[in-house]
Amino acid sequence: MKRKVFFISDRTGITAEMFGQSLLSQFENVEFDEMTIPFIDNIDKAKDACKIIQDAEQESGLRAIVFDTIVTPEIRSVIQSSGALVLDFFHTFIGPLETELGETSGFRVGKTHSLTDGKAYDSRIESVNFALNNDDGISTRHYDKADVILVGVSRCGKTPTSLYMAMQFGIKAANYPFTEDDMERLKLPAALTKQKNKIFGLTINPGRLHEIRTERRANSRYASLKQCQFEVREVESLYRREKIPYLNTTTRSVEELATKILAAAGIKRKVF
Amino acid sequence: MKRKVFFISDRTGITAEMFGQSLLSQFENVEFDEMTIPFIDNIDKAKDACKIIQDAEQESGLRAIVFDTIVTPEIRSVIQSSGALVLDFFHTFIGPLETELGETSGFRVGKTHSLTDGKAYDSRIESVNFALNNDDGISTRHYDKADVILVGVSRCGKTPTSLYMAMQFGIKAANYPFTEDDMERLKLPAALTKQKNKIFGLTINPGRLHEIRTERRANSRYASLKQCQFEVREVESLYRREKIPYLNTTTRSVEELATKILAAAGIKRKVF
Repeated sequence: MKRKVFFISDRTGITAEMFGQSLLSQFENVEFDEMTIPFIDNIDKAKDACKIIQDAEQESGLRAIVFDTIVTPEIRSVIQSSGALVLDFFHTFIGPLETELGETSGFRVGKTHSLTDGKAYDSRIESVNFALNNDDGISTRHYDKADVILVGVSRCGKTPTSLYMAMQFGIKAANYPFTEDDMERLKLPAALTKQKNKIFGLTINPGRLHEIRTERRANSRYASLKQCQFEVREVESLYRREKIPYLNTTTRSVEELATKILAAAGIKRKVF
Repeated sequence: MKRKVFFISDRTGITAEMFGQSLLSQFENVEFDEMTIPFIDNIDKAKDACKIIQDAEQESGLRAIVFDTIVTPEIRSVIQSSGALVLDFFHTFIGPLETELGETSGFRVGKTHSLTDGKAYDSRIESVNFALNNDDGISTRHYDKADVILVGVSRCGKTPTSLYMAMQFGIKAANYPFTEDDMERLKLPAALTKQKNKIFGLTINPGRLHEIRTERRANSRYASLKQCQFEVREVESLYRREKIPYLNTTTRSVEELATKILAAAGIKRKVF
């Protein structure tokens, strides 16, 4: 039987999920069946959640594991009463913080930055729009406003990395592709030479690139292993010649790439 | 003096940031000066981090606060020796989990899903590509493959929400704009009628829409308050007439919108 796991929150549950996942990943021999229950922001909803937990325990015959990030003590204690192993993120750490800061917690349910209002719009959403408007070399006019400009061959991971940096860190990332036509005598175009300190290179293993491009355009010259090998070789040689810092995307997550690029470029990440 | 806060991790530090932020947001009267130190994955790097913490304490004259998610006990104990208040996420919860599961932790530094390799590519990155290829009504051909189709007026938040759902939850979200030309006798286009159970509406306060559109195209008919009021009224009336579930984006974060849409549409979020 799989062990039932619940991520429970008075907000979106995203922090509870990340918190729980990073702990559960330590137990390779246990199979988990996970469920997120967000927006548990009153006693009645907490009682409903309790019922779901207890039904799951009856079904599996195993005690459930609950990761919760609920702020309000009264709501939290309903979840505690479920009988599951409740790992309570908020309650565990708020006490030591109160002592250290000499202030009591307001027990405010997490303030969120709204999608279209005020500062959040100005940073995250503006950055997402910047990434979209400066994706794939469609425009090089705004490179002076970019925090970073990612370069690399087609399908090496530039777009998802740019978008993640925008969404998670509020960073303005443009990206520019080196295409087949650039490959003979590859050099930096003028638009990039002017912003050389902002350029960060991505590369990828040619075999994996071949697979990804084949999904997109099977049996094309573009997707052929030979072409992938050629493009990657040329681009990596450019990076070395021009002393452009670069990373291989093949074994790295978008989180890891975004974090390493910001660190290497000396850009302070914004925390939301 | 601001209180120095460090988010320290053997990986990207993103979990440590979310973990710390949600706790710090409870203390409105304290000013924090935050810094993330990622990839602390050996003793030497931990000693360097310790030095940074201690220098910051000397400068501010206040004990620093550290949120850490370091897995390896030896590296963690170096951070513990800094003298700061160390709130140790991993250490705190791994014990109770080991007892409950009857298994000891592997103390493995978090496995990440790589950007371009295997399953992760197939779900998150494919979903990001899906969102981009089906953004803003550019194509309606693939709506049968969508998990959800967001609709709404121009600039109400469809694109960032679609991209967030893709990146965080691996959900395929298309989006379709109702434009000025659609507004007289507004009805669902055929491409949407066929997929009606997947449609989710977004709306926004007309005043805020006017501000956002003004940044984009000042003094245009498109940005005028009157036009914004008209479009929002027409679209909301369509939602009610067609019984399309909808949310107002004005005061909601992209995390909250994504979570509520998935819950309302009965889509199970994928956890990475």
